[in-house]
Amino acid sequence: MNFPSIPTLSESSRAAAQAILDNKTKPLGSLGRLEEIAAWMCAVQDKAPFTFNRKRVIVFAADHGVAASGVSAFPQEVTVQMVANYVTGGAGVCVLARLVGAELEIVDAGVAGETIAPIQAKVARGTKNFCAQAAMTKEEAIASIEVGMKRADRAAKDGMNLITVGEMGIGNTASSAALLALLTGQPVADLVGRGTGLTDAGLQHKINVLTEAVEFHKDVAGNPLACLAAVGGFEIGAMAGAMIGAASHRIPVMVDGFICTVAALLAVRLVPECRPAMMFAHRSVERGQALALRELGADPLLDLGMRLGEASGSALAIHLVEAAHRVMTEMASFESAGVSTQTN
Amino acid sequence: MNFPSIPTLSESSRAAAQAILDNKTKPLGSLGRLEEIAAWMCAVQDKAPFTFNRKRVIVFAADHGVAASGVSAFPQEVTVQMVANYVTGGAGVCVLARLVGAELEIVDAGVAGETIAPIQAKVARGTKNFCAQAAMTKEEAIASIEVGMKRADRAAKDGMNLITVGEMGIGNTASSAALLALLTGQPVADLVGRGTGLTDAGLQHKINVLTEAVEFHKDVAGNPLACLAAVGGFEIGAMAGAMIGAASHRIPVMVDGFICTVAALLAVRLVPECRPAMMFAHRSVERGQALALRELGADPLLDLGMRLGEASGSALAIHLVEAAHRVMTEMASFESAGVSTQTN
Repeated sequence: MNFPSIPTLSESSRAAAQAILDNKTKPLGSLGRLEEIAAWMCAVQDKAPFTFNRKRVIVFAADHGVAASGVSAFPQEVTVQMVANYVTGGAGVCVLARLVGAELEIVDAGVAGETIAPIQAKVARGTKNFCAQAAMTKEEAIASIEVGMKRADRAAKDGMNLITVGEMGIGNTASSAALLALLTGQPVADLVGRGTGLTDAGLQHKINVLTEAVEFHKDVAGNPLACLAAVGGFEIGAMAGAMIGAASHRIPVMVDGFICTVAALLAVRLVPECRPAMMFAHRSVERGQALALRELGADPLLDLGMRLGEASGSALAIHLVEAAHRVMTEMASFESAGVSTQTN
Repeated sequence: MNFPSIPTLSESSRAAAQAILDNKTKPLGSLGRLEEIAAWMCAVQDKAPFTFNRKRVIVFAADHGVAASGVSAFPQEVTVQMVANYVTGGAGVCVLARLVGAELEIVDAGVAGETIAPIQAKVARGTKNFCAQAAMTKEEAIASIEVGMKRADRAAKDGMNLITVGEMGIGNTASSAALLALLTGQPVADLVGRGTGLTDAGLQHKINVLTEAVEFHKDVAGNPLACLAAVGGFEIGAMAGAMIGAASHRIPVMVDGFICTVAALLAVRLVPECRPAMMFAHRSVERGQALALRELGADPLLDLGMRLGEASGSALAIHLVEAAHRVMTEMASFESAGVSTQTN
């Protein structure tokens, strides 16, 4: 498939950002990662100070055939129900997006049932159970990535200054663990977590199911698109596509938890140049994320013991970007405030 | 001196909070520390959901005689200048407090020069240089604590739902390191950091100065009030007093970085019952904080490489309390959203 070209980050805007920060009334570097965020935003947007008046949280929902193998604590019907909860504003991500003033876009990328998602982009009605067949065809894998790239194009047209992507799909921690195992060659048993809350017995069952499935699909390892087709999900492909598309438009991307981080790794395996446009919002309780973060050389901003998904962690992290923006644009300089500078 | 009595946290309100959270449309416990914050706020306020419409950031400023020994990268005149910067809204904490909708109260607890702080409560015009004498008298130590307790009383009268305290005072990381060494018996050399940005040579000089000073004052170890008098600062005593006072009024306290954490330890050594009313906002780059946190059994919410002080980290953390509040009050329940619950 054809991917858009990705501009490199602007080192001159990054340097201009740091110069602005270094003249604020504070010891050099004393705002730590807020300064890192500010410089990164400027480098991606190629503008110092960066613009931050519109941001969008995009949640992709889809279903997973592997849910039939009993790998989740919740029944598959919850995907449809939660999409309704997103649209009516009652879900966690709705609350957290409102708090930071972010728009929320809900995309049905392949839920099994009918949803009320405003953006209808079903690749298919859920993936197939990947235990003994591919989750999707290669064409569907490409189509799922294109769903996300289109949302990034739309975000660019709407003038978004940052996006974050998130997901909903019963069974998608299972899909993500399998995908991560195939992308990295690591044993899937080390990457499986409790998802939405499996018991010990449920967790062991999930490990058994995924170990067998990854063994079945091992020949695709090394080919990211084939890995997505083998064990991925439509929302995972869509998130990867949205991240690639955002990078092509110089839109910074705040990456959410485990599933989103696996999608980020998929995106980077497909188009390595998209990595610098990403910042990682939070460390998930779901254990597989640590490997994906290592592969990406990423150090998340927050570590709050969260494991909700649906872009809840990255919505929370938007506050840090807002704080970085206010520091850049509202803090006094040594000169304007009449404050003496360092003596050594 | 007489301290107010401190009510115990309400375990029934904590349980009521958890019951509310457990019925929200999310896997049990999946919002991690946001849920911990919500339950803690309810337990301190004895109310579920907790109230969160007024919060106040209180910054105490004072000067330190030890600054004359060359332990800071900035000259002492900066304390007066930064107080003006707080009042006119250009400092980091001003920007971050505005962002979270917190009121900002600036208190002159003992700056050497004249300040434009709206709350004038100078205990004295700076402490004495504690290298070869006590920083303050016992009466001044008590007076500094009372400055903070009065601000907590005012916060209670004004109906604050949370306070955070912060500080400004050239030389106060030196004072805090010495105080921490005397309170814990740990070698001061292990607790000294670069403060606002000392060079290697400056850091070594600071270590030498403080090692000698702590040796000089070693007889006060074990007596927290005497430790404060020996090497403390008026803003440090005031922060401790504000935290004790807040706990007495069931006002939750968000604790800032290194200096504030040392003040929290002082408060807990004076009045152990005030500890449960505290939550710790962020891990500071200043190395001594780790010991103070260990002594307090505290695990900060944020770790963003910050070392600005002035309640900047705790102002940032107020967003997490706001998020916890919105989750409690705005998220849908499984029943209201028509979402199926867990199957195992």
